[in-house]
Amino acid sequence: MPPTATPIRATADELDAIAFDDDGLVPAIVQEQGTGRVLMMAWMDAEALRRSLEEGRTWFWSRSRKEHWRKGDTSGDRQWVREAYYDCDLDTVLVVVEQEGQGACHTGERSCFFRAFGSGAPPDKV
Amino acid sequence: MPPTATPIRATADELDAIAFDDDGLVPAIVQEQGTGRVLMMAWMDAEALRRSLEEGRTWFWSRSRKEHWRKGDTSGDRQWVREAYYDCDLDTVLVVVEQEGQGACHTGERSCFFRAFGSGAPPDKV
Repeated sequence: MPPTATPIRATADELDAIAFDDDGLVPAIVQEQGTGRVLMMAWMDAEALRRSLEEGRTWFWSRSRKEHWRKGDTSGDRQWVREAYYDCDLDTVLVVVEQEGQGACHTGERSCFFRAFGSGAPPDKV
Repeated sequence: MPPTATPIRATADELDAIAFDDDGLVPAIVQEQGTGRVLMMAWMDAEALRRSLEEGRTWFWSRSRKEHWRKGDTSGDRQWVREAYYDCDLDTVLVVVEQEGQGACHTGERSCFFRAFGSGAPPDKV
């Protein structure tokens, strides 16, 4: 059975309070439920945030492609939103997800943060 | 006994590879060692990143005050760097810390992400 979406009923006040930057974006940290692993960071505009909460799957804004994208639509590695938080100064969100499939990273790694400083791993963009 | 600093020996290649934005910054996610809790997100420039790794305490760049700051110098709630990672596209870092004192948030909360969407908590900047 595939995971089930569990929409989050954010209030209008909560959504209005978020302080998007001059480009209309906030960083969205994605953390895996259960393991606590930080999987990735991407950007959300107000629409991506609203959709992520209402639909229960993560939506982001691609700054390079200038379009919305829903995680997993191409890869199958979907993220099912289980909890979502905002920080004290209202300009970063934290989304706790059930990660479906291989992982969050397009490389096949579970997390995009798979290289440690000082590890000697080749520090190339992958 | 206070915590001990454990510097991370990043290579010059690793430091050079990080893709800072047009303002010379990258988002730095701070996660608590052991609990896996995401404590805060702040910004690092190349100098703050270098200092954080070399010194073993977190340094950030304040976009509002336009100056470097070292976490805990005012509050006492210091962060001792234990691991540090960079992501697949080189534009976000993840720092795993031992959090000293009450917590990472200036409100006294352990994490800055203490309010959940849909919780009914007052969504004001604190």
